[in-house]
Amino acid sequence: MSDPDFAVLGIGNALVDVISSVDDEFITAHDFPRGATTMVDLERAEAVYADLPPAQEISGGSCANTIAGLASFGATVAFVGRVRDDQLGKVYTHDLRSLDVHFDVAPATTGPATGRCLVMVTPDAQRTQCTYLGASTFIGPDDVDPALVARGAVTYLEGYLWDQPPAKDAIRKAAAAASSANRLVALTLSDPFCVDRHREEFRDLVADEIDVLFANEAEICSLYEVDDFDAVISHFGARPAVSLAKLAEGVVR
Amino acid sequence: MSDPDFAVLGIGNALVDVISSVDDEFITAHDFPRGATTMVDLERAEAVYADLPPAQEISGGSCANTIAGLASFGATVAFVGRVRDDQLGKVYTHDLRSLDVHFDVAPATTGPATGRCLVMVTPDAQRTQCTYLGASTFIGPDDVDPALVARGAVTYLEGYLWDQPPAKDAIRKAAAAASSANRLVALTLSDPFCVDRHREEFRDLVADEIDVLFANEAEICSLYEVDDFDAVISHFGARPAVSLAKLAEGVVR
Repeated sequence: MSDPDFAVLGIGNALVDVISSVDDEFITAHDFPRGATTMVDLERAEAVYADLPPAQEISGGSCANTIAGLASFGATVAFVGRVRDDQLGKVYTHDLRSLDVHFDVAPATTGPATGRCLVMVTPDAQRTQCTYLGASTFIGPDDVDPALVARGAVTYLEGYLWDQPPAKDAIRKAAAAASSANRLVALTLSDPFCVDRHREEFRDLVADEIDVLFANEAEICSLYEVDDFDAVISHFGARPAVSLAKLAEGVVR
Repeated sequence: MSDPDFAVLGIGNALVDVISSVDDEFITAHDFPRGATTMVDLERAEAVYADLPPAQEISGGSCANTIAGLASFGATVAFVGRVRDDQLGKVYTHDLRSLDVHFDVAPATTGPATGRCLVMVTPDAQRTQCTYLGASTFIGPDDVDPALVARGAVTYLEGYLWDQPPAKDAIRKAAAAASSANRLVALTLSDPFCVDRHREEFRDLVADEIDVLFANEAEICSLYEVDDFDAVISHFGARPAVSLAKLAEGVVR
């Protein structure tokens, strides 16, 4: 096995964050679960956006933010995600490449615009999010090059990808490519609502294919439907390589 | 004369600010005058952007920022500026309208993209700017509706507009419309380099058409080619209505 070229290769949704400050009534009026991410279609995204105050746009996406953070610490990293050939797609590509992130998925030339995530910050600094996936809706197995995956020491997957059927196939293809190249596969469960939507599939994935799992207490307790973090540990008896990150308390094991 | 509908109507460049942090060497390497705004063509704007680190995008423009600030304090205001019918133009329109700024100039359907201003912030918090006007290049007299101008108690003009010939005609048309409706005309000199480029025309404008002039010490001293703020005052003896704002020391007279 040759040495990997990238410390981490991330696969996730390519989203431009549209960040604004709102009051609690805004969240209630739009019926969003506080602190979580709601997936919406274009019509609802535009209706919510029209009600929002002025915003700032910053390239984001859960996995991509992690990759950008690693790059800023000096790690050599790559990202696989899907934008369109529009202004926000160009902004997104610039922002990643300017950090020397390897990012060479060709932008889509047809279909929906580059995706965005409306980040609504309430006075308690909580972030409630509303995501329109746009071009990222169609991330699929064709976007995953097994040769590129084999160049990453770790392939890091975003749980939110599970919301789109073609993205599931992309995840499975990437996990298989990493595994056959003797690389590690990492997954973040993303948020407790995401776990609710895909509990059984996530359990199978963690049991069979994941080497490093990122989850906070709410997410991991939701995954195994237990009330207590200690009760989670028993689920990992047979998988000593699985690492569990507990938010604000470091890696558990 | 009927009561005005708007406390202030602003006319200026509609620019999306692209804000990033750079070191001093970046400014030197690209040969920008520190703290000033350099107008560039698309080719240079793209070359500089390619070298910049990740950025955040916020709707901006000198005059529009003032209008947005007034709106956030509760004033009823309007803005005249020119974007294209592209993603950044939609972002710009959203940001102004969400503050209840009256903004109804139809976006251009052809020609260059919505303009942007690369704001390079150095460690001393100084902002050095590089502007590609884009769609704003063609703001002209057709964008100025005299009936709209007559609805503003004050028409506030941005000195940077003077860099484009059609915009000069727009300024003159707006000033004439305001004057014939017995409204006030205000001008900001924008920056000392802008004053250098248009000194004679700005002097004539101030002598004949401007009621309220916004300038900091460097700008006003450049306008009259004097070294001392006190020496400036004599130039306003015959124009008692002219107010001069001296940065950080309040309005002088």
